[in-house]
Amino acid sequence: MSDPRPIGVFDSGVGGLTVVNQMQDILPQEDIVYFGDTARVPYGTKSKETITRFSVENVEFLMTHDVKLVIVACNTASSLGLEFLKRCFKVPIIGVIEPGAKCAVSRTRNRRIGVIGTSATIASGAYEKAIKKINPGNSVFTGSCPLFVPLVEEGWIDNPVAYTIAGIYLKNLKAKNIDTLIMGCTHYPILRRVIKDAIGPKVLLIDSAREVAKEARLVLDSCGLFNRMSTKGEHRFFVSDEPGRFIKMGEKFLKKKIKCVKRAL
Amino acid sequence: MSDPRPIGVFDSGVGGLTVVNQMQDILPQEDIVYFGDTARVPYGTKSKETITRFSVENVEFLMTHDVKLVIVACNTASSLGLEFLKRCFKVPIIGVIEPGAKCAVSRTRNRRIGVIGTSATIASGAYEKAIKKINPGNSVFTGSCPLFVPLVEEGWIDNPVAYTIAGIYLKNLKAKNIDTLIMGCTHYPILRRVIKDAIGPKVLLIDSAREVAKEARLVLDSCGLFNRMSTKGEHRFFVSDEPGRFIKMGEKFLKKKIKCVKRAL
Repeated sequence: MSDPRPIGVFDSGVGGLTVVNQMQDILPQEDIVYFGDTARVPYGTKSKETITRFSVENVEFLMTHDVKLVIVACNTASSLGLEFLKRCFKVPIIGVIEPGAKCAVSRTRNRRIGVIGTSATIASGAYEKAIKKINPGNSVFTGSCPLFVPLVEEGWIDNPVAYTIAGIYLKNLKAKNIDTLIMGCTHYPILRRVIKDAIGPKVLLIDSAREVAKEARLVLDSCGLFNRMSTKGEHRFFVSDEPGRFIKMGEKFLKKKIKCVKRAL
Repeated sequence: MSDPRPIGVFDSGVGGLTVVNQMQDILPQEDIVYFGDTARVPYGTKSKETITRFSVENVEFLMTHDVKLVIVACNTASSLGLEFLKRCFKVPIIGVIEPGAKCAVSRTRNRRIGVIGTSATIASGAYEKAIKKINPGNSVFTGSCPLFVPLVEEGWIDNPVAYTIAGIYLKNLKAKNIDTLIMGCTHYPILRRVIKDAIGPKVLLIDSAREVAKEARLVLDSCGLFNRMSTKGEHRFFVSDEPGRFIKMGEKFLKKKIKCVKRAL
């Protein structure tokens, strides 16, 4: 069986392109429809109700493209809206929390895992719940880093200010003797070097994007949804604000040229 | 003649409360309906089209409260949406750009004026146009400071990081020998000490909020719209996201307790 329909991916903005980047590698034959909610970005400082409402609208938009699977590539929307989305839609839906949590649990040696993310993601406790569900024996330590997203958007990813801010945010986590740190926001891998510098070289950094792409492959496989008729998928991008800024920022996340971006919603 | 209808004020979030704060002083008898678009904040990184669309929706909401005057208390919306709003609605509408520009022109001695603001405000050139319209003999130097709003929202207003960031952003402006600097974003007065430190003690900082309140008084007076039947106006607050965060942040801007905030839009 072969299913030629595209996979839908949404994020509050450009960050979810790190997931598309990994999907190019792991699911190269699949078409992707990406939606970035750039008119209403960021989600990380907003309430559960608002994030859920936006997420439902985003999936409704993806459904107009007849997607066979939805990936919530935004940590905040995954933390706060995923359960509601699963109840609303019949299509399979994957978030980024569980794959990241699974990976961290499988990699930690001392069972002390750190998680960083937006205020909303950290306040939701979603990562703690996911990690404890897999293995209650793990200790989880969390910290929100609200200035990381603006720093990335400003392009100050190797600026001394970024190192100072990371040092302040990660000071408490560093004292917890963690050996694994989940970067629980799709913007954070862009600050990998800065985060590594602050948390120390021995701590393993987990980027959910690759794990999510692997989980997508697993779901497509188990549901018989692979596109077996293609070798190279087509990627289409939609945003809710003017595309210029998305293209400029997005190419850093996608690590290749973005050609066609359309306005939607 | 007396007009008991309220004045409508909108902003992308909490920043416009600095205008309400000044209005309490200058127009104490007037009722105010404030709308903060906290579900879609910030505006400063978004496009003209999106900012204009949001602004129209915000004024439509204020009109449901039968307002007699609208104040666009957001610099970005004033820069990009004001002209369109004036064409769409019959009610008098005031932005924050012209009052700030007028004040700067009247206060500068060496005719060298600086302006700082969000990326969208600075890119619009709105302050330059307004200043040159009043007096083409002024030189205007601008700089965007995208991390200032996140810094204020994070509460890092007296943190060494804030001083470092301000030093970087204002370095070029400092070299321009300006004697007056317009803080072209309602969040920036919260960073007054930091900005003063970076630009130097001799530069006069202009905060539009007081000028806007004065202009509102002028318009009410000239149109015969004062509320002469009251001595102390009632202030009502509406937001598009959950009110908790707005109340917490907003009290810093309003400099008094915020009692009743309702969800709208």
